[in-house]
Amino acid sequence: MKSWREECGVFGVWNHEEASRLAYLGLYAMQHRGQESAGIVCLQNKAHLSHRGLGLVGDVFREETLEQLKGDTSIGHVRYSTTGDNLILNAQPLMANLLNGPVAIAHNGNIVNNAKLRHELQESGSIFQGTNDTETLLHLISRTKTNQIVPALMQSLEKIVGAYSIVLLTRDKLIAARDPLGFRPLVLGYKTNHKGQKSPVLASETCAFDLIGAQFSREILPGEILVIDDQGEKSYMLSSIPSPVDRAKAQCIFEHVYFSRPDSIVFGHSVYESRKKFGAWLAKENPLDADVVIPVPDSGVPAAIGYAKESGVPFEFGIIRNHYIGRTFIQPQQSIRNFGVKIKLNPQSAVLSGKRVVVVDDSLVRGTTSQKIVRLIRQAGAKEVHMRIASPPTISPCYYGVDTPQKSQLIAAQSTILEIEKFIEADSLRYLSIEGLFHAFGELPQTNFCAACFDGKYPTEIADGVA
Amino acid sequence: MKSWREECGVFGVWNHEEASRLAYLGLYAMQHRGQESAGIVCLQNKAHLSHRGLGLVGDVFREETLEQLKGDTSIGHVRYSTTGDNLILNAQPLMANLLNGPVAIAHNGNIVNNAKLRHELQESGSIFQGTNDTETLLHLISRTKTNQIVPALMQSLEKIVGAYSIVLLTRDKLIAARDPLGFRPLVLGYKTNHKGQKSPVLASETCAFDLIGAQFSREILPGEILVIDDQGEKSYMLSSIPSPVDRAKAQCIFEHVYFSRPDSIVFGHSVYESRKKFGAWLAKENPLDADVVIPVPDSGVPAAIGYAKESGVPFEFGIIRNHYIGRTFIQPQQSIRNFGVKIKLNPQSAVLSGKRVVVVDDSLVRGTTSQKIVRLIRQAGAKEVHMRIASPPTISPCYYGVDTPQKSQLIAAQSTILEIEKFIEADSLRYLSIEGLFHAFGELPQTNFCAACFDGKYPTEIADGVA
Amino acid sequence: MKSWREECGVFGVWNHEEASRLAYLGLYAMQHRGQESAGIVCLQNKAHLSHRGLGLVGDVFREETLEQLKGDTSIGHVRYSTTGDNLILNAQPLMANLLNGPVAIAHNGNIVNNAKLRHELQESGSIFQGTNDTETLLHLISRTKTNQIVPALMQSLEKIVGAYSIVLLTRDKLIAARDPLGFRPLVLGYKTNHKGQKSPVLASETCAFDLIGAQFSREILPGEILVIDDQGEKSYMLSSIPSPVDRAKAQCIFEHVYFSRPDSIVFGHSVYESRKKFGAWLAKENPLDADVVIPVPDSGVPAAIGYAKESGVPFEFGIIRNHYIGRTFIQPQQSIRNFGVKIKLNPQSAVLSGKRVVVVDDSLVRGTTSQKIVRLIRQAGAKEVHMRIASPPTISPCYYGVDTPQKSQLIAAQSTILEIEKFIEADSLRYLSIEGLFHAFGELPQTNFCAACFDGKYPTEIADGVA
Amino acid sequence: MKSWREECGVFGVWNHEEASRLAYLGLYAMQHRGQESAGIVCLQNKAHLSHRGLGLVGDVFREETLEQLKGDTSIGHVRYSTTGDNLILNAQPLMANLLNGPVAIAHNGNIVNNAKLRHELQESGSIFQGTNDTETLLHLISRTKTNQIVPALMQSLEKIVGAYSIVLLTRDKLIAARDPLGFRPLVLGYKTNHKGQKSPVLASETCAFDLIGAQFSREILPGEILVIDDQGEKSYMLSSIPSPVDRAKAQCIFEHVYFSRPDSIVFGHSVYESRKKFGAWLAKENPLDADVVIPVPDSGVPAAIGYAKESGVPFEFGIIRNHYIGRTFIQPQQSIRNFGVKIKLNPQSAVLSGKRVVVVDDSLVRGTTSQKIVRLIRQAGAKEVHMRIASPPTISPCYYGVDTPQKSQLIAAQSTILEIEKFIEADSLRYLSIEGLFHAFGELPQTNFCAACFDGKYPTEIADGVA
Repeated sequence: MKSWREECGVFGVWNHEEASRLAYLGLYAMQHRGQESAGIVCLQNKAHLSHRGLGLVGDVFREETLEQLKGDTSIGHVRYSTTGDNLILNAQPLMANLLNGPVAIAHNGNIVNNAKLRHELQESGSIFQGTNDTETLLHLISRTKTNQIVPALMQSLEKIVGAYSIVLLTRDKLIAARDPLGFRPLVLGYKTNHKGQKSPVLASETCAFDLIGAQFSREILPGEILVIDDQGEKSYMLSSIPSPVDRAKAQCIFEHVYFSRPDSIVFGHSVYESRKKFGAWLAKENPLDADVVIPVPDSGVPAAIGYAKESGVPFEFGIIRNHYIGRTFIQPQQSIRNFGVKIKLNPQSAVLSGKRVVVVDDSLVRGTTSQKIVRLIRQAGAKEVHMRIASPPTISPCYYGVDTPQKSQLIAAQSTILEIEKFIEADSLRYLSIEGLFHAFGELPQTNFCAACFDGKYPTEIADGVA
Repeated sequence: MKSWREECGVFGVWNHEEASRLAYLGLYAMQHRGQESAGIVCLQNKAHLSHRGLGLVGDVFREETLEQLKGDTSIGHVRYSTTGDNLILNAQPLMANLLNGPVAIAHNGNIVNNAKLRHELQESGSIFQGTNDTETLLHLISRTKTNQIVPALMQSLEKIVGAYSIVLLTRDKLIAARDPLGFRPLVLGYKTNHKGQKSPVLASETCAFDLIGAQFSREILPGEILVIDDQGEKSYMLSSIPSPVDRAKAQCIFEHVYFSRPDSIVFGHSVYESRKKFGAWLAKENPLDADVVIPVPDSGVPAAIGYAKESGVPFEFGIIRNHYIGRTFIQPQQSIRNFGVKIKLNPQSAVLSGKRVVVVDDSLVRGTTSQKIVRLIRQAGAKEVHMRIASPPTISPCYYGVDTPQKSQLIAAQSTILEIEKFIEADSLRYLSIEGLFHAFGELPQTNFCAACFDGKYPTEIADGVA
Repeated sequence: MKSWREECGVFGVWNHEEASRLAYLGLYAMQHRGQESAGIVCLQNKAHLSHRGLGLVGDVFREETLEQLKGDTSIGHVRYSTTGDNLILNAQPLMANLLNGPVAIAHNGNIVNNAKLRHELQESGSIFQGTNDTETLLHLISRTKTNQIVPALMQSLEKIVGAYSIVLLTRDKLIAARDPLGFRPLVLGYKTNHKGQKSPVLASETCAFDLIGAQFSREILPGEILVIDDQGEKSYMLSSIPSPVDRAKAQCIFEHVYFSRPDSIVFGHSVYESRKKFGAWLAKENPLDADVVIPVPDSGVPAAIGYAKESGVPFEFGIIRNHYIGRTFIQPQQSIRNFGVKIKLNPQSAVLSGKRVVVVDDSLVRGTTSQKIVRLIRQAGAKEVHMRIASPPTISPCYYGVDTPQKSQLIAAQSTILEIEKFIEADSLRYLSIEGLFHAFGELPQTNFCAACFDGKYPTEIADGVA
Repeated sequence: MKSWREECGVFGVWNHEEASRLAYLGLYAMQHRGQESAGIVCLQNKAHLSHRGLGLVGDVFREETLEQLKGDTSIGHVRYSTTGDNLILNAQPLMANLLNGPVAIAHNGNIVNNAKLRHELQESGSIFQGTNDTETLLHLISRTKTNQIVPALMQSLEKIVGAYSIVLLTRDKLIAARDPLGFRPLVLGYKTNHKGQKSPVLASETCAFDLIGAQFSREILPGEILVIDDQGEKSYMLSSIPSPVDRAKAQCIFEHVYFSRPDSIVFGHSVYESRKKFGAWLAKENPLDADVVIPVPDSGVPAAIGYAKESGVPFEFGIIRNHYIGRTFIQPQQSIRNFGVKIKLNPQSAVLSGKRVVVVDDSLVRGTTSQKIVRLIRQAGAKEVHMRIASPPTISPCYYGVDTPQKSQLIAAQSTILEIEKFIEADSLRYLSIEGLFHAFGELPQTNFCAACFDGKYPTEIADGVA
């Protein structure tokens, strides 16, 4: 139902006997970051072996597939992808056989100057298979004069403007790279292998480490290129940082608002705790007398707990979520109102009837879902319905790796809060302020974070638009 | 992970243009009652048309299938089923072409004297297709001397001992029947059809009504046979009630403890509220100083909320549940401990580290899952882990339509609470008492409920045993 | 394209380590006898294990399925089946668990008095699952008073009028039975097992023996019941033969005309040789000056070879058949004439241009396919097209296990040969005469064969019609 | 069973309302040229829309797929492909989005200097997706300085040594090209469209025209580039012809021996008639007293007919072929000898017993299949078995688009005819001589044909070898 979707999750592991199984599990733990394709590339006798497919991780991989992906180094990727025949061509990790051997890349982010780079490459004869911006990076690497991967990668990345957290595999190296502004998360950890050695592990989120029993070590730094091979680890920094605007880093605050799993530690903060604080601050900014606080499950739960604790209003699960949603769902034809929301969320009268209800959600994008939720809560007998959003109004699209609606479809870019309140038919609607957001988060001034979706201040040029 | 599984959900609708779509949605809302097969039979020109298959409702039915199941009356069924070639033969609704026309039956419950009845029928030449006890009822009906369905059904039911909530379809009648002790739930509601008439709807749980926008009217009474046809509704009561033992009704308390959806009203009580009360009473019976109360999600959530409110200890989502579990899941081979639980549940250090943790679950059957949960919570840094179960120890198998382990595998039937506490490695383990359960529930004395799984007092003879 | 289809093939093997694999191969060799469902039941520790499915043998069975069907005795079946939800319920072997153990039946043929028997059984309370006449036999067996399978089977068969070649499996016996008139073929052979013993094998056609390397021994006799168990083989004869009319046996001549594989020996004759003789006699009865003789492949090939040899006109493959026909085939919308035939058969100008062509087919049912073939041959440049049918005009439907069109759709039942000649647009059309057929076959007078489809003389009452 | 496999078939149609359906049917008729992948690209509003998949044409395309491939111009391709994850990347038509728009190529043949060209392209930064030589051509086109497709294609083709019959689609042109030596066939025809205009059609074989009702016009000439667009047709000739060796053309004689469908006209000859002539000449070169001539079906049939006619020995179908071979076939474990051949071919005693048998096959590659056939014929009772091969011994691999075994596995490259005769256990073995082959074919001297597989004389340099 959310129309603000993370585009990718990446994973990598070096020197572990069950490398592809760990990749599988790591992707599985990060399934929320991309549900339309999944892929794993492993290193086997200096060659790359891969399996990529459309669908959930659990559907794309079978026991027999993983059996074949033997080798002690793997990278993996989950993503949302586009439609049409080329679907599978966009599934990552992207692979190419360069003269010096195979290269596979898993990429989370978005190259802002992709259209220009792609056009230049096509003009000089490069052939593009898919529509994916990651392919541009592969071509840049292929076109460098050096046949050493680290300088080739550095030269290529210095031409790129945008967001990238990358895991790259050659025939003898596992490489992690994060753009100089650090838009997307990327973390390093270690898991002990069967010989008792510490195998380096890379992931978009720490929840992947939890599942596979790896120890979190540190974040890959903005602008860092970490090279892992048989000699150990070596770290490089990108020398020229393209187009920084008015800040030190541009880590995505929306990772904490909605994208990341609550049990991950992202940019040094617990996501669950951040959301609780957003909820608590929301209560502080907008005091209200009410009988019950309920979340829109599942993403609104931590903020609602924070709100309840701060406000003293009791927390309840007033809306029950049905998790048995299959791949396809058949709609009734006409006889059931607000059906799209109802199939997932059922507000229960036993909790809501006759009550003044505060309903807490993490964000509000188009408003249509919120409208249906308010209506359903009222049908369940609520006396008053007060919508509380644990983040500021979303007024600008994201160009850094998130699939967002155009500005014209962001209700807060087009309407006042009062108009939105009326549209969603709530007795009241309140958002968390930007200052409140960063105050609660403990990151004021917000010089290390990008909040362009809330404030319209893009940390890079965005001339190109988005692919 | 639960090894105490509800066996079925049933649904029926009369005189509605979208009958099969409503059945589909009703089954979808009751998917938790049976996830291994699903089926719908509809009435079309006095004939029966059916589609049954193995899998989730959303997988068994496609748009084109529902398109074919036209007609304004349908019944449906979800169930757990057995293995082997005959799987599909056991999928319900069961159907037969009797001389007087087609009969289809959807059954929730279990016939206790099935083996004896089946043997008698086979001796006189009846051929059984599956292993399902519902087939016995079909044969009994087929063998009656009358060719009228209502007396045939009543004569047949009077031979049966056990639990049954039945929805039955002939070529011109929709019939609901509930056994005299009322083990399993069965509710009647109404949904307005396109002509503005009130179409009767039957379901195991009210959450099915919520999804399709039907109004709950009343429960089908224990011993009632409700006949719906073009003449309207007529109610009959079974005259001879087989083998009642020491009580008025025997409604299943476990529906409130675990089976039913929290947003359903079952036996006149909100399941969500019951569970909150069980949790609150659990706190009252076993006071304890702690830092945080967390549920085992999702089934332990209401009880944990109740516990937290009663005890004053703050409620947190200390364990995050991953809902992206596919049909198959590939296990890692050896390197990850306690994996089976971890793939679904991730305790988060940010909430648990250094804390005295109360973890609330709805029930404890074998103890192996609880052990893993306790370990994971401790690995996440908890100082103390106190397991609280919002129901009494489960000491006896169920013979009334629930798939339970044998007595030898019920840990509470074999060990003292202290031994279990030690086995699951908790700092303390406490259960809710039976008296507390019914006190909290507001049903003391418990003359209307079966709690055989907790107290071993079976409301009927059980000579036969159950498969 | 043929609208005269055999309905089944049966197979059985006793005491061979690879019993289910042999069944698989035997069915595979008899795939032409039924392409819509396939099934195998094997005996494992006195229980029956089965796998049945819709589709070709090669699609229904996988390696892992056969792996599970272990045991040294199996029976199998291929058939055409009906449409709808009950499809799989009609797939054979049919199985039932009687009081004395499991019974599985594979049946080729048709019970002529099925409707009457079924009605009587239903009246006394039997429940039918499918629409299959074989189920009636199962019920008859189940209703007998004896609990010994051989008398039970004999009593049941004596109530049945019609065609049946049956292979039946109990928990300790493999039984073959053939109706008293011997409509359908059923043969016995032996294959040496791994211990060097001779394992009995049963099949509809000898081509099944060829593939598995078994030695043909003899035909099961009309009216014979052969019982195979650990004591060896015992043969019984049905004492009362129901409704014989004017002949000794009623073996189906159409098995030689079209159904059976040319490499089978059926009713003591090589099918390939019979067809060659039909073709030769056809040439003798209808001499004609021509340039080339071509078959309609594949079924017309042997007759065309016989015709060519007898007439001295050269034999050529003037029509090339494309064997890559998939499960579904997408039709062009409008721009291609006579497409349905063309997709399979391509007459080639190189052979036909400017020639007087004799085209030989095994039979002619509706005439529409023949019309298209004549047109295509003419388009390929033939000067004259003479259609020759190596069997008499088909004027009556079959009630003995063949899926035939109704009389109204048999062109020869409605039109003179001259009218058909005109309809199919041939320069001339000639059939083989009935006398010629049996003369060529070497079975004059035809007292041992049923030719009801050609002469309308049914060997039994047919009051019931056909299911 | 044949280990000498054609690698591709191509198709194209311009300006016909049912373009993709015609492509589907054309590919269907040429299924024998490639059974592992199939693809169609159509032109829709100046863009390309495609569907490609692994499997038979009838499985890759569904009605709904063809529905989407609307547009009045299409090209298509069938091929054998390699294994692994990249399978689908090699499926043709290959597509690329160049700066001047989309280009799609369907290619039959093989680029002999591919490795060198690919290495040069990679060195200057081109990224290859698959392992297919056709991709090299795409890169060459992309790297030309011109943005006009015709000069770009001509410049690219002039760098290529090898065999290619190509159909290419841009946003406004359909182009056919054939290499200067004309190794592979490519024909032009016309089909009337719904407006009564003549739509150009291209195909590897004329049998594709027969199925769709198109009129054969002429062959695309060796070295010709035919450009079809809204202005009509324009023909160009490649100016520099790379590496011709000692002959005018190098058309593949094996197309007549085995690859092409017998009902096609290839290089101006009827394939059926050629094979009959090969068989007749074989009889003339090796006279023998025998009782019966039988073909190895289906490919040996025309040669056997020719042999029989020339020798006067009667022709019979002594081996019956089972065409119901599914995708997978499960092997028996041990008890059946020579099974691999038997599952397809059943020699029948009725024809062979006691006879001196001449068995005619089109070619003999490894000898293992022939050995099994000889054994089976002998088991069927033949007194003598004489193998006759309607082509010369195959002694050299093909580098021009055929998947052949290495020289070491070509039995005739390693052994004398006498040794092969002994190996296959025949009473005698005779091949057709090369001179006989071309004499029968009517193309002596053979200056227009490549017979490198028989004589080892390659018409181009072959320095590179082939994958």
